[in-house]
Amino acid sequence: MVEIRKPIPVAEAVGLVMEHVKPIGTEIIDLEQSYGRVLAEPIIARHDVPPFDRSPYDGFAIRSLDSKGASGNNRIPFSVIGEIGAGYLGDKPIGEKEAYRIMTGAQIPGNADAVVMLEQSSETEGGFTLRKPFEDGENISYKGEDAKEGELLIEAGSLIHPGTIALLATFGYAQVKVAKRPVAGILSTGTELLEVGDELVPGKIRNSNGPMIKGQLNRMGISYRSYGMAVDDLDACTSIVKQAIAETDFLITTGGVSVGDYDYLPAIYERLGAKVLFNKVAMRPGSVTTVAVLGNKFLFGLSGNPSACFTGFELLVRPAILAIMGGTAPYMPRMRAKLGEDFTKPNPFTRFIRATWTFTESGIQAVPAGFNKSNAVSSIARGNCLIVLPSGTRGYATGDAVDILLLGSEQGVSEWTV
Amino acid sequence: MVEIRKPIPVAEAVGLVMEHVKPIGTEIIDLEQSYGRVLAEPIIARHDVPPFDRSPYDGFAIRSLDSKGASGNNRIPFSVIGEIGAGYLGDKPIGEKEAYRIMTGAQIPGNADAVVMLEQSSETEGGFTLRKPFEDGENISYKGEDAKEGELLIEAGSLIHPGTIALLATFGYAQVKVAKRPVAGILSTGTELLEVGDELVPGKIRNSNGPMIKGQLNRMGISYRSYGMAVDDLDACTSIVKQAIAETDFLITTGGVSVGDYDYLPAIYERLGAKVLFNKVAMRPGSVTTVAVLGNKFLFGLSGNPSACFTGFELLVRPAILAIMGGTAPYMPRMRAKLGEDFTKPNPFTRFIRATWTFTESGIQAVPAGFNKSNAVSSIARGNCLIVLPSGTRGYATGDAVDILLLGSEQGVSEWTV
Repeated sequence: MVEIRKPIPVAEAVGLVMEHVKPIGTEIIDLEQSYGRVLAEPIIARHDVPPFDRSPYDGFAIRSLDSKGASGNNRIPFSVIGEIGAGYLGDKPIGEKEAYRIMTGAQIPGNADAVVMLEQSSETEGGFTLRKPFEDGENISYKGEDAKEGELLIEAGSLIHPGTIALLATFGYAQVKVAKRPVAGILSTGTELLEVGDELVPGKIRNSNGPMIKGQLNRMGISYRSYGMAVDDLDACTSIVKQAIAETDFLITTGGVSVGDYDYLPAIYERLGAKVLFNKVAMRPGSVTTVAVLGNKFLFGLSGNPSACFTGFELLVRPAILAIMGGTAPYMPRMRAKLGEDFTKPNPFTRFIRATWTFTESGIQAVPAGFNKSNAVSSIARGNCLIVLPSGTRGYATGDAVDILLLGSEQGVSEWTV
Repeated sequence: MVEIRKPIPVAEAVGLVMEHVKPIGTEIIDLEQSYGRVLAEPIIARHDVPPFDRSPYDGFAIRSLDSKGASGNNRIPFSVIGEIGAGYLGDKPIGEKEAYRIMTGAQIPGNADAVVMLEQSSETEGGFTLRKPFEDGENISYKGEDAKEGELLIEAGSLIHPGTIALLATFGYAQVKVAKRPVAGILSTGTELLEVGDELVPGKIRNSNGPMIKGQLNRMGISYRSYGMAVDDLDACTSIVKQAIAETDFLITTGGVSVGDYDYLPAIYERLGAKVLFNKVAMRPGSVTTVAVLGNKFLFGLSGNPSACFTGFELLVRPAILAIMGGTAPYMPRMRAKLGEDFTKPNPFTRFIRATWTFTESGIQAVPAGFNKSNAVSSIARGNCLIVLPSGTRGYATGDAVDILLLGSEQGVSEWTV
């Protein structure tokens, strides 16, 4: 008898996974190692930015009242009493009709309240003249103008990108508190699998899912232990899974989750006492994708089919990993696009089609990356998004508006919406 | 006298940089280390995919002619002569009304030309019955259906992403020829700069550009040597720049490119005999961005202003690095969005504004990330795109359609179009 499994909607599967996420804890690391990590503390302005009134231009710092009445016919002369390069301070406050030559980024000297840009002045012996009056505050960047001390600037749970690093550096965060990174286990199952370096032999194929998942983890900066490939043998598989889950923070398996005679993962979950969250998702490819939980660890049972494996990782594993690290935007960004090709197949389950989106003058267009059978390994290497075609009996025509999910996007979104 | 520089359009600056790119050469690396690298050889199908006729389902392999005439009233019985798991082969060809039980991915046995899915059959003692006829080829994935031996699948110059790795694995590329990665030099200039770990003192600020650029390079997987921070001293700076450019493949400096009294980079370029491609770009922030070439190496002179530095890197340095590696899609993807806020400032130069794009039911909306003065360090840590506002005297209003360039996108585009 074939086991009958009840498919659940993709959104429900995602929700079930996210409900079972357990945070992994935090650590303190050097700022320079922090790209791609998830902030475990908010960034608070530790002081005003700028930390002092400063000049945004190269020019002359003056008292604005001294420029009152200046015009083309009434040029007002100023004498320069010194120069302030960025990083230096003026020796003394300026007096009447006095000025400091001042460079971009330098602190405004005492008594000055305006900066004359070099091109707004005419040089003279020992000074310059002005032909227009300046207002109090003109061309000055005020202390605290960009951020006030104590202000919450970035929330915990944000991904650290280069701009975040700039902000952390500004406030002297030489070290930063981030989420630890979970360590993944990877196990490919299937007697048909050869190593990448092996010659092909009849009936066998090379293991492409293992290397691909390592690539998907590398893209996220997540390290892994590889448990190689297991033949379809229940006892051997069980013991490897047991070892792997003990040594890692979560386990990704490929293959063995369908209802075939050698699909042993369901039996392994049962033997280990893992709680199966679902074993059938209303999506194509990857309807057999299974997720189980053992203690506080996930067992992700991805399909052995490469496209399904890829999609299962991006839809279910990736957001879980980000959430384990406290990431608050774990989902792929969504856009609308015009479908670039007819898609006439009936669609009992929501379909995720690898595609390339491009910007055209008539809007975003998404073209399927190739031959879209779920085992088409040639299309897997193309494309930058997944087209989402909701289930339904009708087909889709070129030009129909469809949702797409962006692959390989540094920053995600906080809500699952398809 | 203030030096007068002639600004060139951004597109021209990008074009000048790209014209001066020299490819860096190739190396052979392990497939598992290849994520994010640029392919230096095309991926050719080394064999057909699938490499043999195979079953896409769990079921029974039969001769279709034996199923002729089957119906609900005329069930045709088959006897099962063995089982073929994925990775195994059938012992012998099947004969009349014989079948192999066959698993997903297994090779079709001799004489079989159709696969009956388990749910399309009714089990009997030693076999099963069919109540519908099957066609020649039904439920069979044919040899070469996904790719033919010798077919060019992916061009050299493509970025290696996880799907590319899957394809390489399929064809036994345990090693792959990729572009070498250039090593960057980073030097921050400015007497006003403190180390990130330093306490603030009057007139000084912490160096945020250096750590930010390291983050931007980390994001690209590019390694670097840091030459720390140089005070504004011409001789000292010249000798550090000289050393840095000798030890690295290109140098990024921050600060010192404007026309202030201590902006020494122009003089250093002259002393070294570097060819300055441009020293003024019609963009904000970052109009002082300067690029020079010495031998086959770039000297990128980015502004000391953090937003300008960030933007200069993404617009000019990043595509150059990708092109040095032979990458054929070095530019940020572009989209159209509705401006989420008024922008009333006059705009003599094309303006790049850090922003967050989000999908809304009425389309893509792009909201400036914060206070958009070019020195606003608080906005640098937010946003996932740059809004592009072409130069012009009119302002822009909420809802105006504007171009945006996506930041942190794994795959780029081949043309610069803004």
